[in-house]
Amino acid sequence: MPINRSFTLVRRPSGMPEDADFALVTDETPGLSEGQFLVRNHYASLDPAMRGWMDDKPSYMPPIRLGDVIRASTIGVVVQSRHADFPEGAWVATLGGIAEYSVQQTGRLIDPAALPLVTNYLSVGTGVGPTAYLGLLDIGKPRAGETVLVSGAAGGVGSLVGQIAKIQGCRAIGIAGGPEKCARLIDDYGYDAAIDYRGKSEQELVSAIRAAAPDGVDVQFENVGGAILDAGLMNLNAKGRVVLCGLISQYNSDPAPSRNLWQLIVHGARIEGFILTQHIARIPQAAAQLTQWVNEGRLRIDEHIEEGIENALPAFLRLFAGTNHGKMILKLS
Amino acid sequence: MPINRSFTLVRRPSGMPEDADFALVTDETPGLSEGQFLVRNHYASLDPAMRGWMDDKPSYMPPIRLGDVIRASTIGVVVQSRHADFPEGAWVATLGGIAEYSVQQTGRLIDPAALPLVTNYLSVGTGVGPTAYLGLLDIGKPRAGETVLVSGAAGGVGSLVGQIAKIQGCRAIGIAGGPEKCARLIDDYGYDAAIDYRGKSEQELVSAIRAAAPDGVDVQFENVGGAILDAGLMNLNAKGRVVLCGLISQYNSDPAPSRNLWQLIVHGARIEGFILTQHIARIPQAAAQLTQWVNEGRLRIDEHIEEGIENALPAFLRLFAGTNHGKMILKLS
Repeated sequence: MPINRSFTLVRRPSGMPEDADFALVTDETPGLSEGQFLVRNHYASLDPAMRGWMDDKPSYMPPIRLGDVIRASTIGVVVQSRHADFPEGAWVATLGGIAEYSVQQTGRLIDPAALPLVTNYLSVGTGVGPTAYLGLLDIGKPRAGETVLVSGAAGGVGSLVGQIAKIQGCRAIGIAGGPEKCARLIDDYGYDAAIDYRGKSEQELVSAIRAAAPDGVDVQFENVGGAILDAGLMNLNAKGRVVLCGLISQYNSDPAPSRNLWQLIVHGARIEGFILTQHIARIPQAAAQLTQWVNEGRLRIDEHIEEGIENALPAFLRLFAGTNHGKMILKLS
Repeated sequence: MPINRSFTLVRRPSGMPEDADFALVTDETPGLSEGQFLVRNHYASLDPAMRGWMDDKPSYMPPIRLGDVIRASTIGVVVQSRHADFPEGAWVATLGGIAEYSVQQTGRLIDPAALPLVTNYLSVGTGVGPTAYLGLLDIGKPRAGETVLVSGAAGGVGSLVGQIAKIQGCRAIGIAGGPEKCARLIDDYGYDAAIDYRGKSEQELVSAIRAAAPDGVDVQFENVGGAILDAGLMNLNAKGRVVLCGLISQYNSDPAPSRNLWQLIVHGARIEGFILTQHIARIPQAAAQLTQWVNEGRLRIDEHIEEGIENALPAFLRLFAGTNHGKMILKLS
């Protein structure tokens, strides 16, 4: 049996995760029962939401149990099989976790040639791609000519939201940290305007958004929370829609307060949370459309790939430091 | 020409409004131009939203200008007319403001016998009635068997929301301040459970709501904000809907922060602001249905009437002290 290395949770993080919260465990892969197959996981998707799963609180998915492998979406190749639908040699997408191998009973077969790179599946077939597509279109419901404001605009989700907004005929304004990211918003993702939140007070953010969106914001796609969310709320139009996709500013700290909910009353606007697990039935349609756009050259996918399971934690922490450039992926084997 | 007394804004309140912010002005009513009519205002509706109109900040209605009469919905009788549609002697609903007389060019004729008391028009024909009805049904969209949580549940809007929720076949849970109000929630408005927020920490409120709604909250009708909103959010069900109708806890202070927006992501839930001006077309249907329920004895209307324009401010402040029992109305003449 192959030797497996797994990245496991041994202590619940307090604030920012650290080495002592995890253990890299080496053991032999188990034998397969009927209906199971063994996957060599090649790539794992690293996403901010995984931080929430490390806490012991009720959420849309159960907490990762202490001792268990860190949950993550993966793609890999079936190397042993006792399941007729998943033959050896097939590429498969599963929730394999941060481990070099995993035993599975279900998954989704993928065509490694369907996209320019096989890793692109982690950007458009699951996770960030459908989140950006369905969050924006099904919750935000932007109409051509409307203004879409995106925070975390250079990130895995945000970089797609801006591009999808432009494909829909909207004006797209992105908020990101630092001049390099802001340049990428314009040059790489086609945003009409970019706002660097660094060094800006909430009131300065309000003014910067107003300058970039003089007709106001119709859809706010929120990945960050706190002062950025509040500054956006001050620019909402009547019947504005805030897609609450993430609150990355507070995943490792106490929740940042929002003080401007009164704007929702003034404008008859709404904040609606988006969680992909409630939109499972729509994922295939989203993935098919995104795949088409990528292959037509209309949608740019940037991926930041770090190598080796021993680098799982520093790679994950890049998401919170904002030092990733593109969708964060860990190459496992 | 009759002598008029008007309650006017002379200074924008800082925090809780006080005497020096207003002036009671006595003058002669002006002569009428063609197309105008003079109304003797008998009753004015006093609502928390009026506090927002006293501030100089952009909102769904322009701020009241310094020197102008305090804006308010009124009912009264036409006493002079140069408008064929509004003959002398007719009862009319207008935005007459807190004044004994007002000159109008438009309004809505009302039948003073359509409801048990003519003042009931201010409870069901405009303002609180349509707000409760449309906010709950059009934004909250409760289904029979679902649980509806209402804050400010003994107030003008809240007392109606609970009753309408029960008519829809929902379980209704009300939050109010003090044992007397909580008793009225059960005895007078038919709430299934009442929670006294006084003396409770946010965590105790979370627990109290959980005890009253063991299956969770599907619709939260929010009139208060702050810790009460946050405690409700911790009990939301998947796809829960928060109707944000008011934030009375913060109309006279800095906005109370909300820290639990992450619950919206976890549950794919939404907070949506309700402002009646965006639902004008639906008001007649709401008013007709509410009127029918009142006349059938299915909907109880409680009105708290204070007398005399000189009592406008203390009557208005009762809304924030919570010392009104029922919809607050000022008898003007």
